[in-house]
Amino acid sequence: MSNAASELAALSVPIVGAPMAGGPSTVRMAGAVSDAGGLGFLAGGYLSASGLGEQIAELRAITERPFGVNLFIPAPRPADPRAVSVYLNEISGEALRQQAELGEPRFDEDDFSAKLELVLAERVPVLSFTFGCPSEQTLARLREAGLSAWVTVTTLCEARRAQAAGADALILQGIEAGGHRSSWTDEDESGHGLIALLRLVGSEISLPLIAAGGIADGAALAAVLCAGASAAQVGTALMLSPEAGTVPSQRELFAEHRPTRLTRAFSGRLARGILNRFMAEHGANAPSAYPEINNATSPLRARARERGDHETFNLWAGEAYELAREGPVAEIVSAMGAEARQVLRELAERYASG
Amino acid sequence: MSNAASELAALSVPIVGAPMAGGPSTVRMAGAVSDAGGLGFLAGGYLSASGLGEQIAELRAITERPFGVNLFIPAPRPADPRAVSVYLNEISGEALRQQAELGEPRFDEDDFSAKLELVLAERVPVLSFTFGCPSEQTLARLREAGLSAWVTVTTLCEARRAQAAGADALILQGIEAGGHRSSWTDEDESGHGLIALLRLVGSEISLPLIAAGGIADGAALAAVLCAGASAAQVGTALMLSPEAGTVPSQRELFAEHRPTRLTRAFSGRLARGILNRFMAEHGANAPSAYPEINNATSPLRARARERGDHETFNLWAGEAYELAREGPVAEIVSAMGAEARQVLRELAERYASG
Repeated sequence: MSNAASELAALSVPIVGAPMAGGPSTVRMAGAVSDAGGLGFLAGGYLSASGLGEQIAELRAITERPFGVNLFIPAPRPADPRAVSVYLNEISGEALRQQAELGEPRFDEDDFSAKLELVLAERVPVLSFTFGCPSEQTLARLREAGLSAWVTVTTLCEARRAQAAGADALILQGIEAGGHRSSWTDEDESGHGLIALLRLVGSEISLPLIAAGGIADGAALAAVLCAGASAAQVGTALMLSPEAGTVPSQRELFAEHRPTRLTRAFSGRLARGILNRFMAEHGANAPSAYPEINNATSPLRARARERGDHETFNLWAGEAYELAREGPVAEIVSAMGAEARQVLRELAERYASG
Repeated sequence: MSNAASELAALSVPIVGAPMAGGPSTVRMAGAVSDAGGLGFLAGGYLSASGLGEQIAELRAITERPFGVNLFIPAPRPADPRAVSVYLNEISGEALRQQAELGEPRFDEDDFSAKLELVLAERVPVLSFTFGCPSEQTLARLREAGLSAWVTVTTLCEARRAQAAGADALILQGIEAGGHRSSWTDEDESGHGLIALLRLVGSEISLPLIAAGGIADGAALAAVLCAGASAAQVGTALMLSPEAGTVPSQRELFAEHRPTRLTRAFSGRLARGILNRFMAEHGANAPSAYPEINNATSPLRARARERGDHETFNLWAGEAYELAREGPVAEIVSAMGAEARQVLRELAERYASG
């Protein structure tokens, strides 16, 4: 059994906490998922290496269980500056309205190399990647250091490339998932429903698969296990817990039954969130320009979040967000595990013969 | 237990054959699904009432088992004729190339009323609807006549309305599904991954649910059962069977690993098919104008199909089409049922305690 397979088999609940960068994921959430028998994740995206180092230390102070860190693979090159400037001109009125400035549309690599070295030095058990795949050399270094490297993919093609590069496990992100699409290029039309993706990839790839996207209860967890997942990665399902950093104005929206949509309006990269005015007004015009747009809108989003103006900041959430429950992370994780076991037992009995 | 629930519980394999109008579904396929312990469906869309009557008679000659008929709910009003004519001008060169004429962009109601009366008179056991919901009065008539009425939905909102109107069961079509989206209005962005849709609807609606979209093997069947479906509706999974009307040039493409896309290029209504040149060239410009565009492109598609020119006709298929297997319908249905049972048994054992 591979490292990744044995780590996953060792979980008493086949649930991985999703790394929700930018606020919703917290050190407490990661610790609570791991302590509940799942695998908690720190969201390394947007953090500096020193910020991530602090979170790792804090997490180790509250749990002795294994955990993971997620990092964003940097974009290969800066976006077209003209497209960025046309869009920033369009949203300049939004910044005025929030009494905020637009940030610099900076291209950066999210401190990736420094965070990678930190995670290696810290011997974090599991490292997952979003927006692409590390090089074969990097994956080999991680393997030699005893880390398990999980690569997020959205298509069979990406899954093949991640396996060839030496990934230890794959996180399959279905089109249902909240937050940024983890496709390796920011395309409009790629992506699959989660069950189809699990079956397409599972029919060809022998790595352990972690299913992500719209999994908010134990029945959905049982479903992805049937479709070949070793575990489910859940994020939105934990967003109403006290451990989550979800702001109050977003928590309130979970009861409103709005649809979710994919948009580039906030970050310049496709991401799924609860539909609001900013998405409706600017989504059609936002270019593919990440991280430039994300950096530029950051102050205005922060200001809107502080003010509770939920029509102006990003409300990342998966398609099944309405099923998210309140309560401590430990209770949610345990309840999902128990529900999944019950569903599997009942159906195995019902279809025992035939 | 409702009629629909007991019909579904009586199936020895929880599989419903999808009605694939326009060729792929055949009387033989419907009979084979029902004989294998599932529920076969005739695709009533595009047929005249007399044509459908002949198919019902033929089906009853080859099986004594229950079966269903699917009908298309007519569009509420004709499309904008200017949008239609601009698009037909764009694709006139395609017709020339096929040495075909474009058909008349006719608005019609697909002989709906006559087919509805026929199905009532014939006491067909199950009637399913696509593209909308019959009136309360119609659903009451069907119920009084002892027919089970299943309504296809793509969102929780449609599910609520179908329940309120008196549907006996709901077919939940996930975004993965091949062929036409069965949304009640032809929108760009609505729809859900199948598991999220099952959980969202199942958390609120008590009707039996049939899951449709990307279900090509027993593991996917087990997955949708876990997520709350009473049965899976499978279409693409049967398209390589000898009973299917799938043309040879489309069968060959199943081995090619092309992506699928949603398009209005062929019919004026969003539908999922394997990506080809016609979709790539015209998809972005096709208006929402069904059935007008469908009627207009019909001769050119028929001609391309005859010639085996798979770049020019509609290659409807679901996201998991690459997993479709060859072999008789009875074998596919039985194998999927056996695989699902095995998956459920193994997982129930693996997660028995904890």
